[in-house]
Amino acid sequence: MVNGHTIQFAKLAEALDSGNLPHLQGMGRRQRRAAETRLRLFRCALQLFAERGFSNVTVEDITEAADVGKGTFFNYFESKDRVLGVMAEIQLGKVKQALAHAASGERSIYSVLHHLFLRISEEPGRSPDLARAMISSFLASEQVRGFTERKMREGRKMVAQVVAMGQQRGEIDPRVKKEKVAIQLLQAFMGTLLLWSLHGKPALAIWIENSFQHFWRAIALPGKKQEP
Amino acid sequence: MVNGHTIQFAKLAEALDSGNLPHLQGMGRRQRRAAETRLRLFRCALQLFAERGFSNVTVEDITEAADVGKGTFFNYFESKDRVLGVMAEIQLGKVKQALAHAASGERSIYSVLHHLFLRISEEPGRSPDLARAMISSFLASEQVRGFTERKMREGRKMVAQVVAMGQQRGEIDPRVKKEKVAIQLLQAFMGTLLLWSLHGKPALAIWIENSFQHFWRAIALPGKKQEP
Repeated sequence: MVNGHTIQFAKLAEALDSGNLPHLQGMGRRQRRAAETRLRLFRCALQLFAERGFSNVTVEDITEAADVGKGTFFNYFESKDRVLGVMAEIQLGKVKQALAHAASGERSIYSVLHHLFLRISEEPGRSPDLARAMISSFLASEQVRGFTERKMREGRKMVAQVVAMGQQRGEIDPRVKKEKVAIQLLQAFMGTLLLWSLHGKPALAIWIENSFQHFWRAIALPGKKQEP
Repeated sequence: MVNGHTIQFAKLAEALDSGNLPHLQGMGRRQRRAAETRLRLFRCALQLFAERGFSNVTVEDITEAADVGKGTFFNYFESKDRVLGVMAEIQLGKVKQALAHAASGERSIYSVLHHLFLRISEEPGRSPDLARAMISSFLASEQVRGFTERKMREGRKMVAQVVAMGQQRGEIDPRVKKEKVAIQLLQAFMGTLLLWSLHGKPALAIWIENSFQHFWRAIALPGKKQEP
């Protein structure tokens, strides 16, 4: 346990340094520290869900693993279910970044969506066990499903905007419906994550790359040469 | 409970009459009866997994719901985990049928794969609860994952053969790798089922249709007119 967490904290520190956690950017020190604690509680919870199953983990188990008082937990989350909302926030932060990149016009839409597909696989793709725990936890609780669904809806609206830009710029077939493409992107991601979590090999990045290329072939403007 | 099961048995009877369960075809009466009991145990188990979660259901719960003696269970299955193997068998039977249809040359490969995509959604798509229970159960048990993975591998080999036929007949882009396409078909199906099971609406058939059209666009020979 301790080693696993040490590695995760190292990654967290690295992420914080490199500004890789979009939802932590632009915060003061105290806010950042609070965000770190929240993220630590989230990761410890996910690790425990992976080991014991969502319904067999208590709030006390989580606070013990994260080395904070039980009361502290409720400063950050209403309930155990709410911990999983952090995942949705992290993912939504990445979609927001993608939308900003697309709007800036500096990169092709192919490149923006490609990058997004890789980035949203980072957090749930830490290990097949964690990916399975995450999917199971979503499936197990109605509350989790409820707010995940709302966040997904928000994310899909942003992806649809990116798709529309791709259509305006002649990269994406104008005949495809942008809302449908956004659903397909999410489905491709979820299906890839699920299948990889069952097999565990090769590395998720390879699965993700294949799935993205397949996804892009389905929406690229016919005859338009794709980037390498 | 009882009402739900009655509906399921009606569907089972209908399926048996119409020969819709490929793995029951060509069996004698006794064998068919055994297969029916096996299918009943499977469906009762899945219903209970949906209601209580995989790990909270015992073999006795299943035999009580299916109205058979506890000993009878072990005539059909080695363990609780093995019950889920029935799903893999049913799905594999449908893939085998698709391969036979493709080999007969009577239908286009587009039509064969389209039909397959719809057919494999029938069993897990009975309700969002059941779909979630099925996915969770797969994720929960290493044994289930093990034999599901083997069955999926078998299924993917057959789908790859169908894809190769599509390439020979000029329907599918010869540049795509048939094994990769088979993985994409499975991923598209799993992703669609997962997302639908979270949202619950509209009907799965609509989700499946959109996903199949997206899937086909990614592999169709460029410039080849697709069927309506």
